[in-house]
Amino acid sequence: MKRLEKIFDKLSLNNLDALLVFDDHNITYLSGFTGHAATALIFQDAAYLLTDYRYFEQAKSQCDDFQVICRDRVNQSLAVLIYELLFKHAANNLAFEADHISHGVWLDMQQHWPEIECHRASRWVEDLRYVKDAGEIESIRKAASIADQALTNLLDMIKPGVTERELATELEYQMALLGSEAPSFPTIMLAAERSALPHGIPGNKKLAKGDLLLIDFGAVISGYHSDMTRTFLLGKADDKQRDIYQTVFKAQQAAINAFNAEMTGAEIYHHALQVLNKSPYAEYQGEGLGHGVGMDLHEFPFIGLGCDLTVRKHCVITIEPGIYIPGWGGVRIEDDVVLTDNGLEYLTQFPRDLMELH
Amino acid sequence: MKRLEKIFDKLSLNNLDALLVFDDHNITYLSGFTGHAATALIFQDAAYLLTDYRYFEQAKSQCDDFQVICRDRVNQSLAVLIYELLFKHAANNLAFEADHISHGVWLDMQQHWPEIECHRASRWVEDLRYVKDAGEIESIRKAASIADQALTNLLDMIKPGVTERELATELEYQMALLGSEAPSFPTIMLAAERSALPHGIPGNKKLAKGDLLLIDFGAVISGYHSDMTRTFLLGKADDKQRDIYQTVFKAQQAAINAFNAEMTGAEIYHHALQVLNKSPYAEYQGEGLGHGVGMDLHEFPFIGLGCDLTVRKHCVITIEPGIYIPGWGGVRIEDDVVLTDNGLEYLTQFPRDLMELH
Repeated sequence: MKRLEKIFDKLSLNNLDALLVFDDHNITYLSGFTGHAATALIFQDAAYLLTDYRYFEQAKSQCDDFQVICRDRVNQSLAVLIYELLFKHAANNLAFEADHISHGVWLDMQQHWPEIECHRASRWVEDLRYVKDAGEIESIRKAASIADQALTNLLDMIKPGVTERELATELEYQMALLGSEAPSFPTIMLAAERSALPHGIPGNKKLAKGDLLLIDFGAVISGYHSDMTRTFLLGKADDKQRDIYQTVFKAQQAAINAFNAEMTGAEIYHHALQVLNKSPYAEYQGEGLGHGVGMDLHEFPFIGLGCDLTVRKHCVITIEPGIYIPGWGGVRIEDDVVLTDNGLEYLTQFPRDLMELH
Repeated sequence: MKRLEKIFDKLSLNNLDALLVFDDHNITYLSGFTGHAATALIFQDAAYLLTDYRYFEQAKSQCDDFQVICRDRVNQSLAVLIYELLFKHAANNLAFEADHISHGVWLDMQQHWPEIECHRASRWVEDLRYVKDAGEIESIRKAASIADQALTNLLDMIKPGVTERELATELEYQMALLGSEAPSFPTIMLAAERSALPHGIPGNKKLAKGDLLLIDFGAVISGYHSDMTRTFLLGKADDKQRDIYQTVFKAQQAAINAFNAEMTGAEIYHHALQVLNKSPYAEYQGEGLGHGVGMDLHEFPFIGLGCDLTVRKHCVITIEPGIYIPGWGGVRIEDDVVLTDNGLEYLTQFPRDLMELH
C-alpha cells in the first residue's frame, strides 16, 4: 500500500478529517518532496503540498500524489491558505504534528480557525518510517559503504603528529569525493583521553604513539544516513587498552549474535549489558546501546533499558556499546545492522578487530 | 553592561519573575555555553543552565555567570526541575521563548506548573544580538576572509569539464583546511541555466565554455557565519551576460554607497530597487535584498520592502541583489557589510568585477 494511503486509512479509522504534517522528513517520506519550507495537508481522499515560489517547480516534479500549491509568501498567510482548504473540504477537525511546530507559530496559526477541533498527532508518520523498505535500506547500505571506503582511504594519514581536526577534515572530504551528500553529522574524532568525552569537537591536539583514536562518522545517500564508530590504536595496545577493547567488542557481538529474530530493544540491550556488567569496567559503560537510523540520524527505536518496542525485520539500528574512563580514554564500536529474511546483515563492514596503526 | 544583566533588567522592567530560554544560539549568547541539550532559566538576580552528563563539564567550564545543574535524563524530568527552581525563587510568572520550543513539548512541560502565569517572550535575546560587538564582528571578518581565500584557491579548478559537485566539494574542503568550523550552509554551486534556480543542489552536470557559474557559500568561525555570492563566467561573456552582470553590480553598489549612515532596511533596498526597476530585467529580480548574519545565517534585519527596522552601526548584513531568468540563468553578487564609525566596511573582500575564467 502506498505511504499516503496509509495516512488516508488512519484518518478514516480515527474519524478525523485532516492531518497537518510539518516535519521536513515526514513530508519527504509521504510526498517525495526533498526541499524545505513546505507544509502537507492531507484529507481522507486528497493531499496538498503548500510551498512558495522557491520550491514550486521542484515540488511539482517530485510529488505525483499531491496537489502542489504555490503560496505568495508576502501577501498570503499560510494559516489562511490552510483554512481555505479545510473549508473547501468541509473539515470539522484535524490532527497536527504538535512536536514539529513551535508553540508560538501554532498559536498564531490556530487562531485563524477557532471552530476546527485540533488534536495532537504523535508519530503518525514516524511509525510508518520505523520499518524500512528495500530502497531505503539500499540507500543506507550505499552510505555505509562510502563511509567504509573513506575510512580505508584515511588509514595512511593516521599517524603521530597529525591533528584530530586534520583527520576529520580529510575523512569528510573523502566521503564527499565518493558521493556522500553531506556528513551524517559533524565528525567526532577524538584522541587519547579525549576519546572519553561524550561529545567533543575535533581539536588541534597532535596525535602521539599509544593514543586511542575514536572516530564516529557517517555518510548520506538520498537523504539516508549511515553511522559508524571505530576506535584505533596508534602503535601497540597496552594490556588495559586491549582488555577494554575486547570487552566492548564482546558486548557488541553478544547483542548482535542474539539479535537473530524480532525482539524488543531492551532484550537486545540485555545481551550487551551482561558482558559489560560482568567486566571490571561496568561503572564506565555508556548509556543505552543504539538507535534507529534513516532519514533522521536518531530515530525510533532507541535501544536501551525499558525499550519495549520490538525491533522488527527491516528496521535499521545501530549497536554501539562503549566504555569511557574520564582522564584515560574511551572505546566505542558501532555498526548499522538490519534483520532480514536471511538473518542479520551488517550495513557497515569496516573490520571490527582491534587495529594497531603505524 | 553584561548580556545577562540586560535580561535581569528586562525582567525587572516587565515585572516578570523568570525567563526560559530554549534556543541554542540564544543560550550561547547569554552564557557562553556552546553545546546542545541545555535550557537556561533566568531570574532577576540568578541564572541557571540545565543540562545533562554529556555537557556538564563543558558547561561548568564555559558558564561563569550561570549555576550549572546536571540533570539525570532517565530519572529526572526537565519540567519538574524547572518547577523546583521556580518554587525556590518564589516565582509567580515567567516569560518563555514560545518560538523555540515545540507546541507538544511546551504543553507537556507547562502542565507541571499550572499556577504559574506564562507569557510568550518574543525576540528578547535576538534583540540583544541585533547589534554585534567587536568580538562578534571579528569572528565574521575571519570567516569571510577564509571564504575569500578558499574561493581564490578554487579558481584554477573552474574550467570546462568539471562538475558543480566537484567544485562544491573542493571549496568546502579548502575552507576546512583554512580553519572553518563547518560550511555556513550547503554550498550552492550552479552552472548555466541552473544558476537561475532559487534553491539548487550541486549536480553532476559538467561545466562548459560560456556558462555562468553562481557560487553562494560561507565559513564559520567561533560559531559566526559568513555568506558571500560570486557569479563567474567561463570564457568571454556575451552582451546579455555582461549587461545583466553590470545591472546587478550597479544595484548592489547603489545600496552600499547609500548605506553611509543608519537607515531602515526599506531605505537601503530602495536604492537597489531603483537600479533594478529601471533595467530591462526588472521582472526577473529576486525577492528582497539581504539579511542580518551572525550566529544564525539568517537573522534580523531582513532587508526588503516594508523593513522598518533601522540598520544600526555594527549590525552585520548581507547585500545581495540578483536577476534570475528561468531557462537562461541567474546572476547574484552578495557581500557582508557593516557600518562602522569610519564608514562602511566590507567583511567579504573577494573582487566583485565580472571575472571571465579560462
